[in-house]
Amino acid sequence: MKKDTVLSVTKSFDIRFSEVDSMGVVWHGNYAKYFEDAREEFGRKYDLGYLMMYDQGFFEPIVELSFKYKRPMIYGMKPEVELIYRPTDAAKIIFDYEIRDAATKEVFVTGHSVQVFMDKVTHQLVLYCPKFYEEWKQRWEVNV
Amino acid sequence: MKKDTVLSVTKSFDIRFSEVDSMGVVWHGNYAKYFEDAREEFGRKYDLGYLMMYDQGFFEPIVELSFKYKRPMIYGMKPEVELIYRPTDAAKIIFDYEIRDAATKEVFVTGHSVQVFMDKVTHQLVLYCPKFYEEWKQRWEVNV
Amino acid sequence: MKKDTVLSVTKSFDIRFSEVDSMGVVWHGNYAKYFEDAREEFGRKYDLGYLMMYDQGFFEPIVELSFKYKRPMIYGMKPEVELIYRPTDAAKIIFDYEIRDAATKEVFVTGHSVQVFMDKVTHQLVLYCPKFYEEWKQRWEVNV
Amino acid sequence: MKKDTVLSVTKSFDIRFSEVDSMGVVWHGNYAKYFEDAREEFGRKYDLGYLMMYDQGFFEPIVELSFKYKRPMIYGMKPEVELIYRPTDAAKIIFDYEIRDAATKEVFVTGHSVQVFMDKVTHQLVLYCPKFYEEWKQRWEVNV
Repeated sequence: MKKDTVLSVTKSFDIRFSEVDSMGVVWHGNYAKYFEDAREEFGRKYDLGYLMMYDQGFFEPIVELSFKYKRPMIYGMKPEVELIYRPTDAAKIIFDYEIRDAATKEVFVTGHSVQVFMDKVTHQLVLYCPKFYEEWKQRWEVNV
Repeated sequence: MKKDTVLSVTKSFDIRFSEVDSMGVVWHGNYAKYFEDAREEFGRKYDLGYLMMYDQGFFEPIVELSFKYKRPMIYGMKPEVELIYRPTDAAKIIFDYEIRDAATKEVFVTGHSVQVFMDKVTHQLVLYCPKFYEEWKQRWEVNV
Repeated sequence: MKKDTVLSVTKSFDIRFSEVDSMGVVWHGNYAKYFEDAREEFGRKYDLGYLMMYDQGFFEPIVELSFKYKRPMIYGMKPEVELIYRPTDAAKIIFDYEIRDAATKEVFVTGHSVQVFMDKVTHQLVLYCPKFYEEWKQRWEVNV
Repeated sequence: MKKDTVLSVTKSFDIRFSEVDSMGVVWHGNYAKYFEDAREEFGRKYDLGYLMMYDQGFFEPIVELSFKYKRPMIYGMKPEVELIYRPTDAAKIIFDYEIRDAATKEVFVTGHSVQVFMDKVTHQLVLYCPKFYEEWKQRWEVNV
C-alpha cells in the first residue's frame, strides 16, 4: 500500500419517512445517523468496530462534528454516503464524509468528525495512541 | 387515600420541529417519547424514577405499548400529556396515556403501556413484586 | 392466487448505534421505524407506496399501532422484520409485524398497525375504499 | 440598544431517556435537537419564528452546523442551552451555542450554525437580505 492509498467505504442507503421534516427534506440533524452508519460500515470493512475497541478497553467519543449542507435531500432519492479515513499521528480517529446521489453523484452534504480514545473503566481521555490502534495502522499501512 | 384515588401527572410540552413529518404532523413514532417524558415526570412526582429503581436492583422494560391516534398534532400546537397509573396485583407497572390540546382538551392520542421488572445483574424477568414496589404501593395507598 | 395466499415482505436490517439506549438494548420507541421500513418495502414490492397513493389523492395516517416486546434486541445482532398484509373489507390498511433474529428466528417484537385513508386536499377521513385500492386488491387477488 | 448589545436566549431542559446511548451519555447527534429548541425559543422571544418567516415567503435551511463536545452529558443532569445571535451583513442567520450544567456552568458542548433564506415557492436561494429581516434587525438594533 502506497503513501497515497486511502481507506474509505461507500454505502448506499434509503431515506426513512420519519427522517423527512415538514419542509419535505431530510431534517438536518439526521445526517449524524448516516455518518454513523458509514463509520460502522468502515469498522466492519477494516476491522475497527466499536465492540472490538471496547474489548480492547476503549471507547471513542466524537469530540468534533461538522456538516456543510449543499442541497436538500428528498424522500424517494437514492443516496450514498462515502467516508474517507484521514491519517493522523495524534491519538485520534478522523473522517471526512460526503453524501450524494448514488447515480448522479450530486453532493447533498459533506462533513468531518474527530474521535478520541477514552479508557472504558476510568472514563479518562487517553492521550497516547492505543497499542491496538498503532497495530491497526501498520496492518493497513496507513502513513501520516 | 381512598380506593378510587388515582395517581396521575399532567405535563405540557412543546412539539419539536424535528418531530414533524413531511405531512406536516407529528410523526406517529414520536409519541413514544412524549409518553416516556410523562413516565419520567410521574417518577419524579411519586418517587418512582428509573435511577432509583436501578439502585434497587431492577430495570423496567416495556413489554406492551399501544397507541390510538385520534387527530393529527401540528407544529405550533400546545399539547399536554396526562399519564394515569393503573394499579395491579401483578409484578407490573401499567399506565394509560392521553395527549390533548392543553387549552381545548381535544384529544390527539391515547395509549397504554405495561412494564415488568428485570434483575439488573442477571437480566432475568422478576416474577414476584419487588419489595421496594410493594412499599411504594403502600406509601401511596394504591389499592388494586 | 388462492384465498389463503398472503402478501408479505421480509427485510433484514442493521441496528444503529444511536438506536440503542443506556440499558444496552434497542430503545422501544425505535421499533416504529423498523415497522415503517417494512411498510415501505411492502410498498415497493407490491406497488402500494406512499408517493403513489399521494398521487392518487390520499395519505394513509396510522390510527392504531401496538407492540409486544418479547426479548431485548442488542447492538450487533442481525435482525429481520416481516410484515404481513391482513385483508379487510374496510377502508383500511392493516399489517402485522414480527421482528426476529435473522438466523435463529428468535422473536424480539411483534406488532400491529391500522391505517386509514385521508383526502390529501381536505384532510378529511375517507370512509369508502378508494378506487385505486380496490383495483390494487383485485390485482393482487386479496380476498377478505 | 448599544452596538455591543447581544441578543440571546437561555433555556433549561431535561434529557430524555431515549436520547442517551449505550455508553450512558447523550448521543452526539441529539444535540442538534437541543440547538433547534434554542432557536425556537429565540424565535419566540425575538419574534423571528419559522412560521412567521414562512408567512413572509421564506424558509431558512441550515447550511453549516458544527459541534465541539467538551464533556459527556449524562441522564439525570440538569443542563441549559444558551444561544447567541451573531450579527452579519450577509443574508444569513448565524448563531453560536453553548450547552452547560445549569448550576455549575460546566460546559458540555459548543456549536455554531449558519442559515440562509430560500424562497418558499421557487425553493431558490435568496441572495439579498429579505425586507422583513432588515426590519427585524432595525427593530432590535442589531449592528454588524
